[in-house]
Amino acid sequence: MKRKIINDPVYGFITIDNQLIYDLINHPWYQRLRRIHQMALAQLVYPGAVHTRLHHSLGAYHLMRYALFELKQKQIDITPQEEVGAKIAILLHDIGHGPYSHALEGMIVHDVHHESLSLAIMHQLNTEFGGALQIAIDIFTNVYPKKYLHQLVSGQLDVDRMDYLTRDSFYSGVSEGAVAYDRILKMITVHNGELMVEEKAIFSIEKFLIARRLMYWQVYLHKTVVAAEQMLQKAIQRAKQIGAIPQSNNLSKLFEHKHLGDSQQYPLHDFCLLDDYDILSSLKGWMQHSDPILSNLCTRIINRQLYKIQYNTEAAITQLLLTQQQTIATQYCIADSDLHYYIFTGSVTNSLYKTADEKINILFKSGVVKDISEVDNALVHNNLAIAEQKYYICYITN
Amino acid sequence: MKRKIINDPVYGFITIDNQLIYDLINHPWYQRLRRIHQMALAQLVYPGAVHTRLHHSLGAYHLMRYALFELKQKQIDITPQEEVGAKIAILLHDIGHGPYSHALEGMIVHDVHHESLSLAIMHQLNTEFGGALQIAIDIFTNVYPKKYLHQLVSGQLDVDRMDYLTRDSFYSGVSEGAVAYDRILKMITVHNGELMVEEKAIFSIEKFLIARRLMYWQVYLHKTVVAAEQMLQKAIQRAKQIGAIPQSNNLSKLFEHKHLGDSQQYPLHDFCLLDDYDILSSLKGWMQHSDPILSNLCTRIINRQLYKIQYNTEAAITQLLLTQQQTIATQYCIADSDLHYYIFTGSVTNSLYKTADEKINILFKSGVVKDISEVDNALVHNNLAIAEQKYYICYITN
Amino acid sequence: MKRKIINDPVYGFITIDNQLIYDLINHPWYQRLRRIHQMALAQLVYPGAVHTRLHHSLGAYHLMRYALFELKQKQIDITPQEEVGAKIAILLHDIGHGPYSHALEGMIVHDVHHESLSLAIMHQLNTEFGGALQIAIDIFTNVYPKKYLHQLVSGQLDVDRMDYLTRDSFYSGVSEGAVAYDRILKMITVHNGELMVEEKAIFSIEKFLIARRLMYWQVYLHKTVVAAEQMLQKAIQRAKQIGAIPQSNNLSKLFEHKHLGDSQQYPLHDFCLLDDYDILSSLKGWMQHSDPILSNLCTRIINRQLYKIQYNTEAAITQLLLTQQQTIATQYCIADSDLHYYIFTGSVTNSLYKTADEKINILFKSGVVKDISEVDNALVHNNLAIAEQKYYICYITN
Amino acid sequence: MKRKIINDPVYGFITIDNQLIYDLINHPWYQRLRRIHQMALAQLVYPGAVHTRLHHSLGAYHLMRYALFELKQKQIDITPQEEVGAKIAILLHDIGHGPYSHALEGMIVHDVHHESLSLAIMHQLNTEFGGALQIAIDIFTNVYPKKYLHQLVSGQLDVDRMDYLTRDSFYSGVSEGAVAYDRILKMITVHNGELMVEEKAIFSIEKFLIARRLMYWQVYLHKTVVAAEQMLQKAIQRAKQIGAIPQSNNLSKLFEHKHLGDSQQYPLHDFCLLDDYDILSSLKGWMQHSDPILSNLCTRIINRQLYKIQYNTEAAITQLLLTQQQTIATQYCIADSDLHYYIFTGSVTNSLYKTADEKINILFKSGVVKDISEVDNALVHNNLAIAEQKYYICYITN
Repeated sequence: MKRKIINDPVYGFITIDNQLIYDLINHPWYQRLRRIHQMALAQLVYPGAVHTRLHHSLGAYHLMRYALFELKQKQIDITPQEEVGAKIAILLHDIGHGPYSHALEGMIVHDVHHESLSLAIMHQLNTEFGGALQIAIDIFTNVYPKKYLHQLVSGQLDVDRMDYLTRDSFYSGVSEGAVAYDRILKMITVHNGELMVEEKAIFSIEKFLIARRLMYWQVYLHKTVVAAEQMLQKAIQRAKQIGAIPQSNNLSKLFEHKHLGDSQQYPLHDFCLLDDYDILSSLKGWMQHSDPILSNLCTRIINRQLYKIQYNTEAAITQLLLTQQQTIATQYCIADSDLHYYIFTGSVTNSLYKTADEKINILFKSGVVKDISEVDNALVHNNLAIAEQKYYICYITN
Repeated sequence: MKRKIINDPVYGFITIDNQLIYDLINHPWYQRLRRIHQMALAQLVYPGAVHTRLHHSLGAYHLMRYALFELKQKQIDITPQEEVGAKIAILLHDIGHGPYSHALEGMIVHDVHHESLSLAIMHQLNTEFGGALQIAIDIFTNVYPKKYLHQLVSGQLDVDRMDYLTRDSFYSGVSEGAVAYDRILKMITVHNGELMVEEKAIFSIEKFLIARRLMYWQVYLHKTVVAAEQMLQKAIQRAKQIGAIPQSNNLSKLFEHKHLGDSQQYPLHDFCLLDDYDILSSLKGWMQHSDPILSNLCTRIINRQLYKIQYNTEAAITQLLLTQQQTIATQYCIADSDLHYYIFTGSVTNSLYKTADEKINILFKSGVVKDISEVDNALVHNNLAIAEQKYYICYITN
Repeated sequence: MKRKIINDPVYGFITIDNQLIYDLINHPWYQRLRRIHQMALAQLVYPGAVHTRLHHSLGAYHLMRYALFELKQKQIDITPQEEVGAKIAILLHDIGHGPYSHALEGMIVHDVHHESLSLAIMHQLNTEFGGALQIAIDIFTNVYPKKYLHQLVSGQLDVDRMDYLTRDSFYSGVSEGAVAYDRILKMITVHNGELMVEEKAIFSIEKFLIARRLMYWQVYLHKTVVAAEQMLQKAIQRAKQIGAIPQSNNLSKLFEHKHLGDSQQYPLHDFCLLDDYDILSSLKGWMQHSDPILSNLCTRIINRQLYKIQYNTEAAITQLLLTQQQTIATQYCIADSDLHYYIFTGSVTNSLYKTADEKINILFKSGVVKDISEVDNALVHNNLAIAEQKYYICYITN
Repeated sequence: MKRKIINDPVYGFITIDNQLIYDLINHPWYQRLRRIHQMALAQLVYPGAVHTRLHHSLGAYHLMRYALFELKQKQIDITPQEEVGAKIAILLHDIGHGPYSHALEGMIVHDVHHESLSLAIMHQLNTEFGGALQIAIDIFTNVYPKKYLHQLVSGQLDVDRMDYLTRDSFYSGVSEGAVAYDRILKMITVHNGELMVEEKAIFSIEKFLIARRLMYWQVYLHKTVVAAEQMLQKAIQRAKQIGAIPQSNNLSKLFEHKHLGDSQQYPLHDFCLLDDYDILSSLKGWMQHSDPILSNLCTRIINRQLYKIQYNTEAAITQLLLTQQQTIATQYCIADSDLHYYIFTGSVTNSLYKTADEKINILFKSGVVKDISEVDNALVHNNLAIAEQKYYICYITN
């Protein structure tokens, strides 16, 4: 095929030079990702953060291309088939994301995680393309013998994270979230079949982890973002509870499915018609709904009149809930059973580095391998490995 | 009020420090601009170009702030009221844009230009805010005595253009469209009540005009972008023709209005509920419509299977139309009267600099004032001032 | 005066709008800083890092301007005289740096620190400008009542560090060293007369400290940079020992001064003629010197054939010294007393945050003030506050 | 060899993966380029523009690497030997530049152009490296059969220009000079053995030419830069005239050579010891010279007290010279024969595009080839191809 290049403000140009990859990108199911925001409602705080899942997965594909090129330069043996497989695995890793991705995770297709859906879709596409995606699926599901290929797709230091941190930081304008993806990818290597980084990348890795921690607290778990996404969840929950009819046929059909929890039986074709537009246009329709709770929540999301939210200790939050609940109930004449739509508590967690998880291995010149948390003067130490939790209360105000 | 800052990847931070401006930004009609893409369907070619009208108008407001600061530093007398007025005028200059802005200009509200709607909305807001927008309106409509304030809002060298070229270039990744807005705004001045630029900005102005020319041909009028936007127009036209019901109540209501052309009578509240989501979710609904033309066009837009398009001379285009029409008609079993949905010709124009229009005046150290096209060795000469026209043909292929 | 603007790739434009500041910048003693590299010999590893002390101090002046603007916006009372004073203090804070600044600190003017020389020069300029620098001197020496002005010039979070991290990172291409100076400066405030940062800047401060740590290990204390700067010191030391005559009159005169250690008596005018060019052209002259040690060291610096250097534990380094010394002595036929020119050990230290020092105070919304190392889940904890030390050995190889 | 990477703020990382290229970079003659400023005295106006010839030639090497990679992707047959040859040719293209490159071109080595010296040095290195540079020399001198390799080294669209425009713009902070080197290099191709660009790069090429025009007028020929470089020339001219002894042995030797004009006989080893430091330290020494003209000129350069300069028409300049000459002569008690050191006229020229020169060929999809000045609506037309000339007068003021 003739090589195609796509302009990308983050990396300059993204190159497509394989027919199968080109066909997959042009598939309606992949194109659907154009209509799913990468950062859900974070744009209500960071107006620039309106980029899409399609853009992120193209970016991650680009970094995979870069990573494989570097590994081959270092004489790591990677076949052309494996290369295409790894690229497809990362290209499609998010294809199972539903509308507003993480913000509505498990709510549209009840209790099904987007990775299961990604896999189901890959299987379907594999059938459609005559088995050409088998290696990609094996890499994605970590049954492929060369483990490092899976680790590049999904691990502590995968190209998914590298792209989303880089891209989300770029689009939100939170420049502190940028990571040195180019330096890190120049320093990766394979040792005993596992992905490692060279000793001299230690500081870059530390910066990578710190950048991630910062992006979580400052952006993904920014209190206004949490308030907005909670409001979105509450609105969908209310709509389902009272059987409100969405303004979107696609969404309507989905609301009627019985066994949504079973991804095997799940009607993938219907799911693959769904995107942020179905949700948002339904919210807009429900602004006029006769149910005051639903119409109130929807109007507030659309007009950006969000819950007031406070972060505090668990005790303080519980105390606040007790003192505020009755005021809210009275003020809005709301039944106790519905009070949770207008006032509720919750918590968010974030950890610098999960030591229990897959590790980030540093390969020293001496041949020794150490986890990043075990090197001398490690910034990442045990305390920071403990997940940090913040409690919050959300409530309606005028 | 407490000062608010908004992260912007383009300028770093945008500062809001005036209560009225803060309230206007929080108004639902302004928030609506979050749901209107700045570059319509250009994202089908440039996946990063998904930014919104809200973001652009905040950016233009930021540049206005910068421009006024610079002028005041140069001892130009600007009152606090005028400053707020000019900022509001630019903040709201695009508030009348409908869904997909230029791509559907005049199609949703028949034959009404978005500037008329912006003005109508400003009048309404002026009433709502007790007359506080009067100076802004006077500046916007160019009846305010200090002409340069209007020229900053709307002129050859206004902050609107500076922001959209900078921002569209940034988000699309077409770095060549970037303009030296900071340098130009440091070089502006006022002379005889008119906005001018100092002599040493000549090359920056030339670069500004060239960047604009490049952005038009390479991005805004990129052939695939034109094909996509033509397809969107044809789909809406077809829906109206056959009376298809949109999947959006907001859009339905609007389709029923009688005197859409009359912005005075026009129901602004209905218009101000409309955004890209209403159009796109309706297109998604119509993918299943019984009319094959409508369902075909809608499916193609959603799945990015666009018209094939060629640019050529007028004669060649006419010739191609004649030879292709019958093939298309036969192939798709389509009536002659509907053939224009599947094959048609058109043209686009662009000019480097419209000398007939308002000029870009250069103030020389000697006190002489010359138009940019009249300086020695001008890059912008008469030939280039003539609008350049390109003819195209669009048609369906499998 | 007419406002002047200076192009800066880091900040865009630097504005000069005060006659005294303009005159100081044009003073030959300030212009001398054009000929002193900001990063000494780091350019031998990072070829882009060739920027000057003049550029850095202009940049720090720009950030001071920005910081004062932000504080005034927050209703902190700062008089125009104080503003000019603080700007001058930062503009001149490095004016006492000699050739190759830190790399030769204390070697040219024996045992005198550059800050003492900066102060001596400021006093001299104060006389020259009729006392106009008095407030600047008071701020610089921390006797001015408003402590926060001094803290902006010299403290854990001063504009000096913000500029050098930003600028050194920019010019070296080590993008990971960039700090969010704009965000931090938007978050500073004054509380009880002290400089503080608002609660929501915590993560930016952490990133700032991590960036500094990274820049030290990856750039300033990069082993090849250390090797180069040690070689420069050894060459100067040898030249002094054998009484070699520099190829520069300025340097010759200085080598003859008796009481170099006493900055009060020190001939400032001679010092203020000295720059990197005197050192480097002398090294070039000495390439032909009859002393083999001097000519060898000089030739190696000029041609970038540096010491081999290894970092290791103190014990390992001592061991290496013992085993290598004799080989080197034999190979180069060098006397024991001169052996230290060809092989020697040393150490470098770096600390994330010196808790003993002045603190970085976080002002919480509740009014509580805490040091950055004491906030919940602090990244900066006691362990990291301990200075980290690395031992090295340098020796000549062919 | 083990691959080496070099940090570059412009391109991220520059990769060296060939032993011969690595050895050439480490050669003292190449390392000398670290001590020659890329932009001579332009740093007196643009303080950031202190980068070196070494950095520029490494950058141009990087772009050559990128260009060859792209051409090979397009199935252009390039052998590994040719690849190394083209890379060496560009790496060494500026190795013959003397101190302050263009500013003193022809003054140090009388009437010899730096390209002749580059070639002479390449021949010498070719001998030293046993003939390994032959292809590089053949490409450099355009006797190699594949013409496009030479065109990449030296032509209207060579990687030399692409790097210097990009890098000079980056370091000076004149962002408008940036060119889309990545886009252009993605669009180059080879047709009939000649380098061409694809049709869709037309606007990028136009932007490239405009950027170059802007960089010339705004930076390289900025009036203060011209004044500074003229003053440097006058100082060297005076020193030679009165037989002043440089403070640098290297320069002294050179001043004594008889047949400087003959590069064949020219003592390359002496030349290759010379750099900016020899000139500048000599100027510093001459600040105390007994000749008032020499000491005055040198003091002024060092302290940045430059000629006053005005650009105007030829007639006006001549008139100014006549009226000012006598005043200057009287004021400074200067002999008529020496008056030209304190007051003189001159001119600079710049052209958008030299149509007489090698062309920029556009390869249309149809197979047609046209020069960039002949495409429809060409920005580059005959008028602009005429060199634009500006006349100036320089004179001393207090």
